[in-house]
Amino acid sequence: MLGVDSPLLVQRALSEDLGGYGDITSAWTVPAALRGQAVIRARQELVVSGLALAEEVAREVDASLMFVREAADGELLQDGDAVARLEGSARSTLTSERTMLNFLSHLSGVATQSRRFAKAVEGTGAFVVDTRKTTPGLRSWEKRAVVHGGCRNHRFGLFDLVLIKNNHLTAAGGVREAVRAAQAMRPHYIKIEVEVESELDLREAIASGADVIMLDNQDLEQLRRLVAVARDLKPDVMLEASGGVRLETVRAVAETGVDLISTSALTMGAPAADLALTLTVEA
Amino acid sequence: MLGVDSPLLVQRALSEDLGGYGDITSAWTVPAALRGQAVIRARQELVVSGLALAEEVAREVDASLMFVREAADGELLQDGDAVARLEGSARSTLTSERTMLNFLSHLSGVATQSRRFAKAVEGTGAFVVDTRKTTPGLRSWEKRAVVHGGCRNHRFGLFDLVLIKNNHLTAAGGVREAVRAAQAMRPHYIKIEVEVESELDLREAIASGADVIMLDNQDLEQLRRLVAVARDLKPDVMLEASGGVRLETVRAVAETGVDLISTSALTMGAPAADLALTLTVEA
Amino acid sequence: MLGVDSPLLVQRALSEDLGGYGDITSAWTVPAALRGQAVIRARQELVVSGLALAEEVAREVDASLMFVREAADGELLQDGDAVARLEGSARSTLTSERTMLNFLSHLSGVATQSRRFAKAVEGTGAFVVDTRKTTPGLRSWEKRAVVHGGCRNHRFGLFDLVLIKNNHLTAAGGVREAVRAAQAMRPHYIKIEVEVESELDLREAIASGADVIMLDNQDLEQLRRLVAVARDLKPDVMLEASGGVRLETVRAVAETGVDLISTSALTMGAPAADLALTLTVEA
Amino acid sequence: MLGVDSPLLVQRALSEDLGGYGDITSAWTVPAALRGQAVIRARQELVVSGLALAEEVAREVDASLMFVREAADGELLQDGDAVARLEGSARSTLTSERTMLNFLSHLSGVATQSRRFAKAVEGTGAFVVDTRKTTPGLRSWEKRAVVHGGCRNHRFGLFDLVLIKNNHLTAAGGVREAVRAAQAMRPHYIKIEVEVESELDLREAIASGADVIMLDNQDLEQLRRLVAVARDLKPDVMLEASGGVRLETVRAVAETGVDLISTSALTMGAPAADLALTLTVEA
Amino acid sequence: MLGVDSPLLVQRALSEDLGGYGDITSAWTVPAALRGQAVIRARQELVVSGLALAEEVAREVDASLMFVREAADGELLQDGDAVARLEGSARSTLTSERTMLNFLSHLSGVATQSRRFAKAVEGTGAFVVDTRKTTPGLRSWEKRAVVHGGCRNHRFGLFDLVLIKNNHLTAAGGVREAVRAAQAMRPHYIKIEVEVESELDLREAIASGADVIMLDNQDLEQLRRLVAVARDLKPDVMLEASGGVRLETVRAVAETGVDLISTSALTMGAPAADLALTLTVEA
Amino acid sequence: MLGVDSPLLVQRALSEDLGGYGDITSAWTVPAALRGQAVIRARQELVVSGLALAEEVAREVDASLMFVREAADGELLQDGDAVARLEGSARSTLTSERTMLNFLSHLSGVATQSRRFAKAVEGTGAFVVDTRKTTPGLRSWEKRAVVHGGCRNHRFGLFDLVLIKNNHLTAAGGVREAVRAAQAMRPHYIKIEVEVESELDLREAIASGADVIMLDNQDLEQLRRLVAVARDLKPDVMLEASGGVRLETVRAVAETGVDLISTSALTMGAPAADLALTLTVEA
Repeated sequence: MLGVDSPLLVQRALSEDLGGYGDITSAWTVPAALRGQAVIRARQELVVSGLALAEEVAREVDASLMFVREAADGELLQDGDAVARLEGSARSTLTSERTMLNFLSHLSGVATQSRRFAKAVEGTGAFVVDTRKTTPGLRSWEKRAVVHGGCRNHRFGLFDLVLIKNNHLTAAGGVREAVRAAQAMRPHYIKIEVEVESELDLREAIASGADVIMLDNQDLEQLRRLVAVARDLKPDVMLEASGGVRLETVRAVAETGVDLISTSALTMGAPAADLALTLTVEA
Repeated sequence: MLGVDSPLLVQRALSEDLGGYGDITSAWTVPAALRGQAVIRARQELVVSGLALAEEVAREVDASLMFVREAADGELLQDGDAVARLEGSARSTLTSERTMLNFLSHLSGVATQSRRFAKAVEGTGAFVVDTRKTTPGLRSWEKRAVVHGGCRNHRFGLFDLVLIKNNHLTAAGGVREAVRAAQAMRPHYIKIEVEVESELDLREAIASGADVIMLDNQDLEQLRRLVAVARDLKPDVMLEASGGVRLETVRAVAETGVDLISTSALTMGAPAADLALTLTVEA
Repeated sequence: MLGVDSPLLVQRALSEDLGGYGDITSAWTVPAALRGQAVIRARQELVVSGLALAEEVAREVDASLMFVREAADGELLQDGDAVARLEGSARSTLTSERTMLNFLSHLSGVATQSRRFAKAVEGTGAFVVDTRKTTPGLRSWEKRAVVHGGCRNHRFGLFDLVLIKNNHLTAAGGVREAVRAAQAMRPHYIKIEVEVESELDLREAIASGADVIMLDNQDLEQLRRLVAVARDLKPDVMLEASGGVRLETVRAVAETGVDLISTSALTMGAPAADLALTLTVEA
Repeated sequence: MLGVDSPLLVQRALSEDLGGYGDITSAWTVPAALRGQAVIRARQELVVSGLALAEEVAREVDASLMFVREAADGELLQDGDAVARLEGSARSTLTSERTMLNFLSHLSGVATQSRRFAKAVEGTGAFVVDTRKTTPGLRSWEKRAVVHGGCRNHRFGLFDLVLIKNNHLTAAGGVREAVRAAQAMRPHYIKIEVEVESELDLREAIASGADVIMLDNQDLEQLRRLVAVARDLKPDVMLEASGGVRLETVRAVAETGVDLISTSALTMGAPAADLALTLTVEA
Repeated sequence: MLGVDSPLLVQRALSEDLGGYGDITSAWTVPAALRGQAVIRARQELVVSGLALAEEVAREVDASLMFVREAADGELLQDGDAVARLEGSARSTLTSERTMLNFLSHLSGVATQSRRFAKAVEGTGAFVVDTRKTTPGLRSWEKRAVVHGGCRNHRFGLFDLVLIKNNHLTAAGGVREAVRAAQAMRPHYIKIEVEVESELDLREAIASGADVIMLDNQDLEQLRRLVAVARDLKPDVMLEASGGVRLETVRAVAETGVDLISTSALTMGAPAADLALTLTVEA
Repeated sequence: MLGVDSPLLVQRALSEDLGGYGDITSAWTVPAALRGQAVIRARQELVVSGLALAEEVAREVDASLMFVREAADGELLQDGDAVARLEGSARSTLTSERTMLNFLSHLSGVATQSRRFAKAVEGTGAFVVDTRKTTPGLRSWEKRAVVHGGCRNHRFGLFDLVLIKNNHLTAAGGVREAVRAAQAMRPHYIKIEVEVESELDLREAIASGADVIMLDNQDLEQLRRLVAVARDLKPDVMLEASGGVRLETVRAVAETGVDLISTSALTMGAPAADLALTLTVEA
């Protein structure tokens, strides 16, 4: 199932590219009746993501254009592998090309980056998770791409997890006060996570019954120490490391014993993946 | 003037973050009456872009929240410089924070990247220009950010320039045929650009009266040679180099004598800029 | 803060009422310059909800119409108490009347019904919670009204809690298999709830590590027995009773020792509250 | 034909339920390839309404899901009767379930309630009609449900009938003045109805040429008297009783000789109808 | 009150004109700080209509631009008279100019044309009314313009009057059958109009109780005869002439004694009115 | 390909006509099962335009209604020629009729008017072009209709050509200053056009390197003189005549030697074309 908002997203993207006159180059240089076959290929190793949007682009541009998937979202492809094939009007294919590729490059970029992080922590037991640092308008698609690449999602937005950060602690008057206030109001199915920067806060957070503890901006040594303190107090408490994590350092962080490592490098920091469409027109 | 589509864009971004229950953490841990002062600061050298969207976020979340710009779009800031200040409800400030920063980080990233490229070609007489490889839904904002950083825009979409590429040449039967076909149809104010990959095509494109020639995927030596050929035939023909340009190589490309260098590195390849909001609540 | 979707909701409601010609009766019988003062009053004991929407109606109809709240969402009012006052154009007041009252009646109805249930279980330690049986298009407003009335929210939709029901159990092959499958995929902050109908399933659900157990369609005796079994296995497991609960029976259910009782009676079953607007025109 | 606004309405309802991650329970516990057969059945005697919306929900969730109607809008069903059948992906069926049922329960509730009132006045010659007290966003669907149940519609909104109420009378200076003012402005095809509360006003309304007279908040005795007065003056004048009508009292009101009885009990006062979906998965 | 759909209409119109880059000429040639005063004037005798839309254009482009009305919708102006004044940013004024004028020219054209027809029938007792031949997307504004010009509205759409035409008569089996069918279904407040082309049909329509009779495509002689027949049968029956009416012939048609004359010349046939904006910039 | 905004445009047009109750006349007088065949015919000589919208209307009203084109956009038809045929539900055909015809009449009117102008200048080498004086919401469709009729498009909006008019010249300080300012900012693919009213300005515009010169509001003699001056200075400069051009005068203007003649007569001044639908129902 394609998300309910995707037609709007695709229409908006096409509208940016087509303006009022449409694809004037194809209209004026490509015969209306010319048919072609096209293939979208990976031009690097990548994890595919965004196929549903590419398919919707083709359908919006020309309902008679055939779009056949040659790979699935989440699949690892090598340079040269086919992602999808199109068959139909050559004009419509060219008109669709850039918008299809923009979705696929962006989202496969996120999935591929996520795969790098997932591989980096393999075997440690820790998961790398995303953040809310996403491209406005594309969050649900980027978060799916994170999963396609083998990482996990953190909360979707402000509404599905209580995540008490420094500003909230200051406003509430401390860890205990903030956690208590949230516990008094939250529905039974909503967890509470607290960001701590000291051992004192960590102990208070666990004592207050927080479900998850975020250890923010700690070096490896501090992380190891805090993990030990936490496990000693409550062995199964969920621990998340956060702040300044890079691909080069993520394994070391994972080896401190935390359960989760969150980083915006999966989404905002992901380089676009390289894909291209080639068209063969019929003689 | 804020673009006519921006309220929709901002509402969509906020809707992703607020869902049905809104900012539950702030609602349950921050007193409703608590007021605060916040400042958004650069945490690296950057060129600001996207202030209108950040301001619109604040207004949508809480019309009584004051948002005061401390910098202008296109301004170069140093690490620690203020971008904007907010004053009003502490809850509303925290609710707005991430969406404001996501717009500013993404667009200031594009502007800052564009500045790097603009500096790299300074003094050569060439301009670096963007492409249509933009984030779906954000094209007009990314293209403004490119200008904020000191680069130029290429065509906005498929509708405001005839750009004849390989696929069109094949379909039309050659450079001359494609250019003639476009000339016969185009309104008087629309220019024609042709992508060429050989000297033969270059000569034919100039002979046919193309306004701009794109020299695609040429090495420096070939570029220099083709520029010489072109200038010899028509001194003031506009020449664009395209394909695989990086920050490290862009100056050398500019020095071949082309007028324009297009690269998706300005938009899809731009790393997000680092900004942060700090809140001070009133005693 | 008014939800980001509320202007659309209010515009849609007004559009239903105004059509293409608008309020023809007021336009043709009420002088354009006539000003008036109006008050919206409760005509029964009720808990107010939906004031932000009523205020938005007034603003959409006529930005110069003053709307002053005389009560707050969640406040308990008696028959005759004022909810809000309006001052300005008599025509605009009459044009707004029905749409304002439709929002207030519907949502105050939900809040008032929720208060009845909340009072019924007072002192038992159990909470009454809502379901996903809501009016299409109004879920976030109805769920806030539930809280205004003193009850709690269950999950907002399909996306913020794993709730494994009979159909999922059948498809997955049993309680253990379903819980394991969900545990393997869920982000760390998402809880898992399982619906059980037998003691065997209850034991398996607890053993598998489900966070919440829904005891569906049990009579009081069975409920008491299952609560005892569950508390014996895991004292702090969260238990929810569900199915066929009415205002007359909810206290007895609460006294079985469950933590939560879910019922669609809070939303779909809530009778509209009675409110009315009276207008005084200036001499 | 499905109303032009229904796709938007259905998308909005689905969007509430799916959020950004979609139906996580089905995604994680039900195999993607599992197919099933489902039937939606009445669990009480009811008049069906809203089938077009339920069908649209299925189509939006998964275009390959087959939805076959087993009953027609307006049909009276008994407990256990099938309303519709679905065949296709088990996941898609479960994802659609609640949104389909929310539309059907709400609208069949209105139709069933309308049938109760229609039966109550059977043989009296009077019609029971709806009001503008409808759920914001659902008016056209609720008004169709009223007809499915055997009652009639009153005006759709403020735009298709002049209905002069007390506030208008005060503003205009009296019945005669208000009716004259409206007569001078109304298009030829728009009728004029006047609300009266005394015999004097009734006589003036008829003398002024009002097409319909609303007798508001009268007891049975007064109604009978006013009907007699009106019939005496103008035998074929259309008379509507309004205010505080209940199922228990509606027949007595009808027997006073009025032509129409309007009541919000058809819409805002209608209890939701009980329907359920059962799924059988293929072995 | 501005119609609820007008912001969308204005945004769509501005979006056509601004595209992705906005008003590049003003941005590049007019200093950002330059302020100006502008006046919109009639350049012919005209009846103003559409001021609310022009004002909304100014507000959408730049909320700080002052827009002051110098005339009211429905007012008759002479060549040179001021319609409105603007004060503020010169750039914003120029950016708004064309969209403001397009609304005003189109709608004042309809109002002015309507005035011509209204004057032509003055004193005859007949009204000229519009049709459903309107510009898609602008019906409610064109219909208001018709009233501003002194004519009347016919039904708004297919939903607010039963208008039985030839095709319906054929399908229903005759005038009597069609009218009876409609009478059996219509709400009490909906009138029935029937199109007739012969005396036989006219007699049947009146006998069946139709509220309005449309005499379609009759010459003056036939009209006079049918009017006499109709008045003889039912003196107060409402009679409408329709088909091929022009400004030159409308008075003669009115003098046949019909009550209404409908013509698409008021809307689709109305020439745009001539208005212009002149800007004075501050020294 | 149908433009991406057309479904919205068609839905809005249908929504105007259907309101909340839909086509009540057809619903109550035409049997649901009745099938028919309909043909849309030209009732005058006309150039067809808008078929895609008419087809979309049919599809939105009833997906099972067959719509077959009997002509193509841009085709010249004679009185009586078929434009399209429909087959299917008689009700759905009647419900679609007016909205289909409104699109076709309006756009074929523009195309037919454009053909008149195109014929008038045939053989002169000049093109007649449109302006931005278009109906709000319909610009892209009207501009396509202009091309269907044989004329050319001028710029689409404010964003795709620099067009420096009097107000900009005043603000910038003169022709040279304005052109230089635009040259310094414009992307390489955007042309610059300048409006001039004197020989001095004309000389300065050419000297500054403007791509196109608009000669505004000149009589024929002045036009001839300015064309001679311009051709003398720069033989291939593009020259546009503008202001007060009518069908009777356009050829004389073309014969002055200008390249382009712009006139709002193609769009705002175009009379609607006459088309009609006739329905045959099956026995």
